[in-house]
Amino acid sequence: MPAPPQSPPDPCVMVIFGASGDLTFRKLVPALFQLFRDDRLPPCFALVGYGRQPLSDGDFRARLRDGITRFAPDRWSDAAWARFSPNIHYLQGSYDGREGGFDRLRTRLSQMQKECGAGDNAMFYLATPPAAYQPIIRGLAEAGLERSVHGWRRILVEKPFGSDLASAQELNRALLAVFRERQIFRIDHYLGKETVQNILMLRFANSIFEPLWNQKYIDHVQITAAEAIGAEDRAGYYDATGALRDMVQNHLLQLLMLVAMEPPVELDAESVRDEKAKVLRALRPWRGEFGTEVVRGQYSAGEIAGEPVVGYRQEKGVPPDSRTETFVALRVFLDNWRWAEVPFFLRTGKRLPKQATEIAIVFKRTPHSLFAKSTGQDVPPPNVLVLRIQPNEGIALRFEVKAPGPGVHLQPVVMDFPYDSSLGRHAPTAYETLLLDALRGDGTLFTRRDEVEYAWRALEPLLAVWSHDASTLHLYAAGTWGPPAADRLIGASGRAWRCP
Amino acid sequence: MPAPPQSPPDPCVMVIFGASGDLTFRKLVPALFQLFRDDRLPPCFALVGYGRQPLSDGDFRARLRDGITRFAPDRWSDAAWARFSPNIHYLQGSYDGREGGFDRLRTRLSQMQKECGAGDNAMFYLATPPAAYQPIIRGLAEAGLERSVHGWRRILVEKPFGSDLASAQELNRALLAVFRERQIFRIDHYLGKETVQNILMLRFANSIFEPLWNQKYIDHVQITAAEAIGAEDRAGYYDATGALRDMVQNHLLQLLMLVAMEPPVELDAESVRDEKAKVLRALRPWRGEFGTEVVRGQYSAGEIAGEPVVGYRQEKGVPPDSRTETFVALRVFLDNWRWAEVPFFLRTGKRLPKQATEIAIVFKRTPHSLFAKSTGQDVPPPNVLVLRIQPNEGIALRFEVKAPGPGVHLQPVVMDFPYDSSLGRHAPTAYETLLLDALRGDGTLFTRRDEVEYAWRALEPLLAVWSHDASTLHLYAAGTWGPPAADRLIGASGRAWRCP
Repeated sequence: MPAPPQSPPDPCVMVIFGASGDLTFRKLVPALFQLFRDDRLPPCFALVGYGRQPLSDGDFRARLRDGITRFAPDRWSDAAWARFSPNIHYLQGSYDGREGGFDRLRTRLSQMQKECGAGDNAMFYLATPPAAYQPIIRGLAEAGLERSVHGWRRILVEKPFGSDLASAQELNRALLAVFRERQIFRIDHYLGKETVQNILMLRFANSIFEPLWNQKYIDHVQITAAEAIGAEDRAGYYDATGALRDMVQNHLLQLLMLVAMEPPVELDAESVRDEKAKVLRALRPWRGEFGTEVVRGQYSAGEIAGEPVVGYRQEKGVPPDSRTETFVALRVFLDNWRWAEVPFFLRTGKRLPKQATEIAIVFKRTPHSLFAKSTGQDVPPPNVLVLRIQPNEGIALRFEVKAPGPGVHLQPVVMDFPYDSSLGRHAPTAYETLLLDALRGDGTLFTRRDEVEYAWRALEPLLAVWSHDASTLHLYAAGTWGPPAADRLIGASGRAWRCP
Repeated sequence: MPAPPQSPPDPCVMVIFGASGDLTFRKLVPALFQLFRDDRLPPCFALVGYGRQPLSDGDFRARLRDGITRFAPDRWSDAAWARFSPNIHYLQGSYDGREGGFDRLRTRLSQMQKECGAGDNAMFYLATPPAAYQPIIRGLAEAGLERSVHGWRRILVEKPFGSDLASAQELNRALLAVFRERQIFRIDHYLGKETVQNILMLRFANSIFEPLWNQKYIDHVQITAAEAIGAEDRAGYYDATGALRDMVQNHLLQLLMLVAMEPPVELDAESVRDEKAKVLRALRPWRGEFGTEVVRGQYSAGEIAGEPVVGYRQEKGVPPDSRTETFVALRVFLDNWRWAEVPFFLRTGKRLPKQATEIAIVFKRTPHSLFAKSTGQDVPPPNVLVLRIQPNEGIALRFEVKAPGPGVHLQPVVMDFPYDSSLGRHAPTAYETLLLDALRGDGTLFTRRDEVEYAWRALEPLLAVWSHDASTLHLYAAGTWGPPAADRLIGASGRAWRCP
């Protein structure tokens, strides 16, 4: 099937704030370079890095070159770099625009727009620590950079988007005082993953899934985002954040929305996000009940893949009495027609046995066990559809067949579809997808104001209880699937976590 | 999963009529030998071959030994044969029991039953040409062999079971004058195939298929039984029979019944066959309309796998003006609640491009095309579930996923489950399954009187029209998928045959 032509992005200048940081170096510029090599960037495209560190254009380019060769070595090309790099510049300045940084930016911007014929289009990317977001937004407005007469302005905001409902609302207010919602692109890089986008295709481009996709046929859903890594070099940030804010508020709730949403009227940004927001509106409020609704844990020393690893409190940069959770398991109900009384079990954690993000749809058992008498088995085990987000992206369906041999015996088998290898084409990274969509002005894969606020609102009762109850933090050995309390949370209803 | 113990078969003597024929040699005895090697035969089991040829026990054993080593060489074992063969005997006699053949059989039977402690159990297998069936049945009764005081008698009848409704009814009357229905085991070896039995497991041991298995979600069903071989050494029989009688009346209608039946109350012979018979009762009567309901064809010279092959009329043993059909395509409707207005397309033929028996469930398209605008495609192609009966037994599901890469593009993919290799165990042959079931007295996989008669009754209108209209026989080149008229038969409703 030849791909129908996509409208090419408008010429523009992209400004990255926090340009000397890790994200720029590891993710953003490798993604931009790949888009450039695929001829997907606008014919006229320039990049300005803005940061507090003093760097020359040459220093900055050398650093980015280093980032591409280290983090996307298979994409490197000397020739392409020779064409791409001259349009990269660096500008030093403070994030509040004092000392005239934003004035210099305006001058540089209009100069570059002229040089390369970018019209008056500019895309700002907030890749700084969150504390700098509001000063930058205000600074842009004060410098008149937020306006354009003939072109457009867009602003991309990296996660975390707030640390609770109040801070998220405040950031939204600050953004919306300067930009309109359609100019704002809030990043959740999970939404850029091919297999996450594929959830909608799978559900709505096939006729066989949707009839089964409701409380009549689904027993429960498990959403798992497991990491084998520990706090690593983000310990300072992580300890102030914890798994609930770091993973549940954004990634896990995004997966929940995509798997649970109603079919949108159209596949455009507003229709899709309308339906996603409705999922969060249907979320039955948690009361913060430990054990039945939520379990939190923190890893102690253990072993991963045969190697001993230290406990969280022994990690460099983590206070030895930290009570930050590195594991959360949650039971979620959606009070709507489709999902009435179907539990969704969500879990995420660090130092679990392996990295694995997946959604498992566990179907109800057959209403009648036709084979009980002949097989001596009870009702056959349930069918399970697994959407593997990462790694080994793919789809697997577990069902029962006749075990070969005499007599009637059932045997569960798994039919597997490996997404990546089967389609014979390298899938773009999440940032390639998201940057290109933003350049094209398509907000479908970005979170809207109401989504972000509903998600934070949903967590408020938990955060409130947690703030004054520090007693219910369960330790779990690194390399295990979290504390036993998490098994009891799902096991109370006779169910069990899948082993991804 | 450990298999629950199956009740072992009773000790018995099995008598094969037509013992010097091909079936005994190629299929039946290799299957019995395999059952013996698997310890599935009764501890006391003896075999009597009855035929018109004069053979000593030694001759007969040597022939069977040759059959096993030729047709099931991987099952051969000298040691096992040394234990198995002494219980094999041969008896010469006519099929009507004149010249005292059946009296000798009675004597031999009671002698062997005593020798080996087989009680008074005997299983008769009719593997002769059909013309001998009724004389044998009468002969058994006249010799008092059909009765048992302390044990049981069973009779297995090979296909073909009649050549039209009247002859099938006559054979049923002859059988039922001597035996009760539960003693009669009519063979359709398709029902012994693992993947055919698996149809019921797949449908009723899983909760995800049955909700989709009806006119609301299924657009149509295709049942294909394609052979690459020609008339071969069966030309005489085949030319008098044709594809409709040889394949449709039994195999294709059996597959239709299994795929379309309602869930049975239990998984026993009567419950399953009650539901299967109901399918044939719901069959909308054909009027014999050529072109829209049915297409028949005969192969002319062509090529299979690059090799030139002669046309049917040039085959050895086929009259050069033969009008026997070697290809049939049919459109079938089942007038019941589940299948109202869902067409089932059946086709079978010789000298098609390859051997392939499969059932394809073609689902309806999505009710709304969410992706039309973004992909420039119309409604995505339908989901298809393919049950491959032979070769490469397995299950395949075609569905749509996101094509990797920027933008929203759909791509059909196939998730495949290879039945045999995945379960890591050699599946028993159809005859192993059927012989063991008959030894155990389980008639589930055998056709009941009403099934056979309903199937013949269904074909009556076609046979009636065909008997006086010889004009509508379409020639097709060997190595093609049948005459173009078969494509028009399915294409008239905008559908198309799958390429297996």
